Amino acid sequence: MELRADVAARLKDFLGPRLSVAAADRAHHAASESFHRGPPPDAVAWPEDADEVARVVTICAAAGIPVIPWGTGTSLEGHALALRGGVTLDLSRMARVVEVRAGDMQASVQPGLTREALNTELRATGLFFPVDPGANASLGGMAATRASGTTAVRYGTMRSNVLGLQVVLADGRIIRTGTRAAKSSAGYDLTALFLGSEGTLGIITELTLRLHGQPEEVSAAVCAFADLHRAVECVAAVVQSGIPMARIEFVDAATARAFNLHSLSALPETPHLMVEFHGSAGRVREDAASFGELAAEFGATGFDWAVSAEDRARLWRMRHGAYNACRALRPGATGVVTDVCVPMSHLAAAVAAADADIRAAGLIGPMVGHVGDGNFHAQILVDPDDADEVAAARRIAVRMAERALAVGGTITGEHGIGIGKRGLMAAEHGEAWQVMGAIKAALDPGDILNPGKLVPDRN
Amino acid sequence: MELRADVAARLKDFLGPRLSVAAADRAHHAASESFHRGPPPDAVAWPEDADEVARVVTICAAAGIPVIPWGTGTSLEGHALALRGGVTLDLSRMARVVEVRAGDMQASVQPGLTREALNTELRATGLFFPVDPGANASLGGMAATRASGTTAVRYGTMRSNVLGLQVVLADGRIIRTGTRAAKSSAGYDLTALFLGSEGTLGIITELTLRLHGQPEEVSAAVCAFADLHRAVECVAAVVQSGIPMARIEFVDAATARAFNLHSLSALPETPHLMVEFHGSAGRVREDAASFGELAAEFGATGFDWAVSAEDRARLWRMRHGAYNACRALRPGATGVVTDVCVPMSHLAAAVAAADADIRAAGLIGPMVGHVGDGNFHAQILVDPDDADEVAAARRIAVRMAERALAVGGTITGEHGIGIGKRGLMAAEHGEAWQVMGAIKAALDPGDILNPGKLVPDRN
Repeated sequence: MELRADVAARLKDFLGPRLSVAAADRAHHAASESFHRGPPPDAVAWPEDADEVARVVTICAAAGIPVIPWGTGTSLEGHALALRGGVTLDLSRMARVVEVRAGDMQASVQPGLTREALNTELRATGLFFPVDPGANASLGGMAATRASGTTAVRYGTMRSNVLGLQVVLADGRIIRTGTRAAKSSAGYDLTALFLGSEGTLGIITELTLRLHGQPEEVSAAVCAFADLHRAVECVAAVVQSGIPMARIEFVDAATARAFNLHSLSALPETPHLMVEFHGSAGRVREDAASFGELAAEFGATGFDWAVSAEDRARLWRMRHGAYNACRALRPGATGVVTDVCVPMSHLAAAVAAADADIRAAGLIGPMVGHVGDGNFHAQILVDPDDADEVAAARRIAVRMAERALAVGGTITGEHGIGIGKRGLMAAEHGEAWQVMGAIKAALDPGDILNPGKLVPDRN
Repeated sequence: MELRADVAARLKDFLGPRLSVAAADRAHHAASESFHRGPPPDAVAWPEDADEVARVVTICAAAGIPVIPWGTGTSLEGHALALRGGVTLDLSRMARVVEVRAGDMQASVQPGLTREALNTELRATGLFFPVDPGANASLGGMAATRASGTTAVRYGTMRSNVLGLQVVLADGRIIRTGTRAAKSSAGYDLTALFLGSEGTLGIITELTLRLHGQPEEVSAAVCAFADLHRAVECVAAVVQSGIPMARIEFVDAATARAFNLHSLSALPETPHLMVEFHGSAGRVREDAASFGELAAEFGATGFDWAVSAEDRARLWRMRHGAYNACRALRPGATGVVTDVCVPMSHLAAAVAAADADIRAAGLIGPMVGHVGDGNFHAQILVDPDDADEVAAARRIAVRMAERALAVGGTITGEHGIGIGKRGLMAAEHGEAWQVMGAIKAALDPGDILNPGKLVPDRN
C-alpha cells in the first residue's frame, strides 16, 4: 500500500523533508528490538511541535490513514509497528526539556526526550527523574507503555511520576490532562488513562514529570544465595520489613554466568540480589545494615559493596546489560522476553515454575527481576529461524502468563501489550477488555491511532 | 416524582424490606455534611452483594431511572445527592473485609467498609491502610472521590493505594479492573479511571487495597511559627530535603485558637505545623532531628513532642476535629470548605491571598492544609440563612480556585467535584472536559449513573 498522493502532498506541504517515503526510513520503522516484525509504514514524519502532530493526525484522520507514534524503538512487544501501514510519527525531533521548575520538583518535557538526556540536563539542579527501564527509552514511549524498571520499588512507575500530559486526539484536538499540583480530585484521571494506552487513544506531545531530590548518599551491593527460593524469600521479608530499598533486583544463576562472561565479573554462578539504598548518610547506613542482617538470615554470602559512583555505575551497567550479556550465551540467538508480575507470596513459585518449564524444553532462559514489585523476566534464547524453537519459547511465555493470572497477577508488569500480548488480554481482563474497546471507539471512532493494538477488534 | 410502581415492585421483589420509600429514609439521603442540599431520592436500596447491585442497576437502566451510590454521606461537595431523583444505593450493608492477604500486604474489602473499621480489623496483622481523609468515610466513597488527607505526603492518595476494583457498569455487567500484582502495563488503567469518577461510570462493589507495615516507631510533634510565610516556606524546604515525612500539616492562627477553645490545648495563636514520622526507632530519631534543625532555621518554636500512642491520638484527634472546632468559632454557622492544591512554589502566596480575601469580606475562615502536597482548605464560616454571606463565601472559594488554576494547580485536591465544583470544570480542563463527557457517554449511554454530576451536560 502506498500513501495516497494527495495526502502525501498535503503532509509534504508543511513537513517538507521531514516527511519521507524512502525505503530505508520506512524499513527502520518496521524493525524492533525483539523478534516482532511488521510491515513498513507508508511514510515517516518527523514533526517538531504539537501543532504539526495535530495537522498530521487531522489530515490522516480525514483520509482514514493510520498514525503510529514512535519514540526510540526500544519497545519489546512491537508496539510501534505499522500493522496496517500509515504514517509513523517519529518524535525524535521533539526532544526538548521545555522547562525545569526546581522549586516544584517538576519538569515539562517533549515526548522524544530520552530519560538519560533528561537526567544529564538535570544534573546541576540536585534533582533527577528516577524511572529506569534499562533501555535509554524516550519519555513519551515510557509514558505510553506505563514503564517502570529497577527503581519502581522506591519511586513508583510512570503512573506515579507523570503529573500531566499534552495529547493530540484522533480528531486533531490538543488537550491537557492533569495539573502541576501534586494531586487532584477534579474528575476522570485522563492522565492515567493515556499512560499505558500505547498510542491508541492519542499522541503524547508533552509530559509534566515529577522529579526527586538526588540522594545525598547512595550505596549499592550484590550478594549471593544458595538457591532461588532463599533469594526470593529474602526479598519478601525485606519488603515486609519496610526497609526503603531504592532497588532490589534478582538475577538467576544463568544470568550470573552471563555477567561473568560478558562483564568479566567473578560472581559465583548462583542466584543473586543486587540492591541499592538512597538517602542521607545516616539513613543509608542504617538501611544497608538492616538489609544485611535480614539477608544473612536467608544465607546471603559474598556481599560486595559499591559505594563510589564508579563502582555503582559498573554494577548497574552490568545489570542493564543483562539483555545483551544473556543473548551472548547463545550466539545468533534472539530472546523471547517474558514480563509477568505476581503478588509477592507467589513470586518464588512463579520463578521456579518458569525455570522448570524452560529446562524441560531444553532451552536456555536466564531470568532477572524487579522482585520488590513481584515482576520478573525470562529471556528465552531461540534461533529466530527455527520455527519450532520460537513456538516452544512462546508457549512457555504463555504458560508463565497464565500462571501469573491464576494467582491474581498480570501478563505484563512493565513491557506492555503491543502485538506480543494482545492474545492474552481477554484472559486477564475478561469483560473489562470490552470496556477498553468502548473507550477506544469513543475517542478514536475512525480507528486511526495505532490500529490493531491493545483493544479488541471492532465488530 | 415517585418511583414507578412496576419498577418499585421489581426491586422489592428481591430486596424486600431493604428497599424503602419512607420519607425519613429518603430525607436522610438528601442531606450532606456541607451546605449542599438536594431533593430526596425516590427510594433507597440497601444491597448486600454485587449481584444485587447489578440487578438494581439493570432494572433502573431499563426504566431510565437514576442510580446514585451512597457511602457514609461525609462528602463535602454534594456528590451523593439525587439531583434527578431515582434510587440511592446505600452501601452500608456491604461493609465486610472480604480477605486479608498479609503476605502480599493487601486486603479485599466491600465498598461500605469504613477506613477505621478496616484498620481495627487489621490491628493484629502488623499492617494498616494509611489513607486518612479525617472523616471516617467508606472506602468505596474514598475511592470514588480519589480521597487523600494527612498521610498522602508519605503513602500517596487512593490513586496509589487501590490496586483493583470490582465495578457494576450501567448495563449491569460486573467487571474487575486491575490485578493483585504491584504494577501492570496491561492496557488502559481502568482502575484509575473509576477512582475519582464519583459514581458516574459504575458502582464500585469491591476494592483491592494496598496495605503498609505498621511502623515500628511513630513520633509526632507540633511547633509554632511567627507567620504563615515562614511556616509554608519551612514545608517547601522539608519536602525538598527528602525527609520522609509521614504527615506535615499546616494550621493557621484562627485554627490554633479554635483548638484552644475546643480541645483545651494551649497553643500560641499563630500558624503551626503538625508533623509525624514513621519508621524504625533509629530512622524516626534521625528524621525528627533533621526536621527539627530545618524548622528551627525558619524560626519554629514551642516544639511539643508526642511519642506515646495516647499523646499522638490526642494530637491527631485535635487536627481531625478542626472542622467542628472551627465551626464552633461562630455558633450556628456552616462552613463553606475550599480545597485547592497548588505547586509548592506557589503555596505561600496562595494561602496569603485566600487569607486576605476572607478578611476583606469581613468573614472568619480558618485554614488548614496537607501542605506537603500543596493542598489547603479554608473553612469560611457563614450563616446558612444569610444568602449574601453564602454568596460572598462562594465568591471567595471561586477566586481561590481561579488563582490555583492560574499557577497550574487544581480546583480540588481531594474533595472532588460533586455539585459544588462542577461550574469550574471547564476552567480547569478546557477541551479535556469534553473528553470526560465522551467517556461517560460511551460507558453510560442512558445517563443513569449519578446523573447531573462531574461531566458536561449532554447536548
